[in-house]
Amino acid sequence: MLIGAMEAGGTKFVCGVGTREGEILEHVSFPTEGPEETMAKAVEFFSRHPIQGLGVGTFGPADINPESPTYGSITTTPKLKWAHYPMLPELQKHFHVPAAFDTDVNAAALGELTWGAARGLDSCMYMTVGTGIGVGAVVDGKVLHGMNHPEMGHILVRRHPNDTFAGACPYHGDCLEGLAAGPALEKRWGAKGIELADRPEVWEIQADYLAQALVSYALIFGPKRMILGGGVMKQQQLFPLIREKFKTYMNSYLQNSYLDDLDTYIVPPGLQDFAGLKGSIALAVLASKVHSL
Amino acid sequence: MLIGAMEAGGTKFVCGVGTREGEILEHVSFPTEGPEETMAKAVEFFSRHPIQGLGVGTFGPADINPESPTYGSITTTPKLKWAHYPMLPELQKHFHVPAAFDTDVNAAALGELTWGAARGLDSCMYMTVGTGIGVGAVVDGKVLHGMNHPEMGHILVRRHPNDTFAGACPYHGDCLEGLAAGPALEKRWGAKGIELADRPEVWEIQADYLAQALVSYALIFGPKRMILGGGVMKQQQLFPLIREKFKTYMNSYLQNSYLDDLDTYIVPPGLQDFAGLKGSIALAVLASKVHSL
Repeated sequence: MLIGAMEAGGTKFVCGVGTREGEILEHVSFPTEGPEETMAKAVEFFSRHPIQGLGVGTFGPADINPESPTYGSITTTPKLKWAHYPMLPELQKHFHVPAAFDTDVNAAALGELTWGAARGLDSCMYMTVGTGIGVGAVVDGKVLHGMNHPEMGHILVRRHPNDTFAGACPYHGDCLEGLAAGPALEKRWGAKGIELADRPEVWEIQADYLAQALVSYALIFGPKRMILGGGVMKQQQLFPLIREKFKTYMNSYLQNSYLDDLDTYIVPPGLQDFAGLKGSIALAVLASKVHSL
Repeated sequence: MLIGAMEAGGTKFVCGVGTREGEILEHVSFPTEGPEETMAKAVEFFSRHPIQGLGVGTFGPADINPESPTYGSITTTPKLKWAHYPMLPELQKHFHVPAAFDTDVNAAALGELTWGAARGLDSCMYMTVGTGIGVGAVVDGKVLHGMNHPEMGHILVRRHPNDTFAGACPYHGDCLEGLAAGPALEKRWGAKGIELADRPEVWEIQADYLAQALVSYALIFGPKRMILGGGVMKQQQLFPLIREKFKTYMNSYLQNSYLDDLDTYIVPPGLQDFAGLKGSIALAVLASKVHSL
């Protein structure tokens, strides 16, 4: 049985087909343009494969509530052409198979739990730090939804004493995303993260903000592993800095076997850049248990 | 069928018996002393009733993981006599009935969801602001656990510009609990909350910290209703202030039907002071569905 998977990202789409076991047999990638041209490419790709299920992990915000009349749509987004675009309904016009729809980061969290860095656990968190900060999570084996999907990239953090950057979030100014996503880094320092690799003051501040957020997530819903991916996290020097600051902020308040070794608690993705695509397969497989795919 | 319920609080214990429908038929309350004398009173009370199930909601931190060898115990606590005390095993020596064990605030969240202010929803959050700040939650119909129970009273918030109080948390200094629990209020202003009712500057700062935390919880796990109880929340003037500041901090970033009317989103307990006790019954009933009580 073949499952189709689509990772609809803000800058690129990745479409693939794979097995229920998460093996990707073929995939293609193309830039995110307007919905008509982009979705046409996705439909063309899936049409060439006898898929029996479909999982979609999308950029957001999106309506992921199956009870909602606009389920499967992008909602508000600065990408105006995509605002309120009915992504899943468009696919369902062409493919009459059981389908699942969630955020790219929720898909990635489920992918990592099923086949990646959080295998064997019943909860985890996946954060991507790139053009924005997105976080997905699995709690007790299920993807975390609430009123809608999490938006935990926008929590408030305390300002680092050496940081005078105003913040770049159009809604909150200096929330986490406003202080620590890729564009914030670039505006603060006047250069892209990749060009700043050897400037320790850059990563000191960056790690501080990310660690504050991780401590809040740990206290609030206690994921059993934290997986950090995305463009900014390619700066591997961030990991030890984040762990150190996590430890300082936590100050031994939570003590349990998961936190005993932060090298295994705060980790890079096990599925590398395929977390979202494989996660979309996992979404479809999980949905299939309900809909007996 | 009678269910026994025990709310083990830091200052008092409440024991009751009730029906599966949450009706409390009889209850007693006594101060929390050392474990021997306090638990003896609880055992004596339950012995007088033919209970067929038992739910316990306790102060924490406690081991709520049924797979753990110390399941049902208090863990570390400044109440030294209670540290590592096997609360549930002690009860199970006397009562051979299916039992559930969780935090008092997780029990209260489940109670409010089942019979109180969050009835009809599948998620909610219950916060108590008293000698500490404790928060419990239900997500997708189940009490929220992660590595262990939530400890969301200890997240970091941003300091109010008019607040110079150092903070009273022994672990984190000026975390939420360190700035906004009852003892922090008292140390900052030199008087108990109840004596400060007519001083607006007190509640301005208090509401600011609580609103920051609620915004983080909404962004992170999106409970469909937020219920605020405990001694400090008896100051009803806090509710409109918290709602106003919640709105300002959120700045329309999350928009959905739950947040359209904050008067129905951020609310006092529907079960008044019985949230924890009724919630403990709900815990036992929920456990009974697994163990076919």
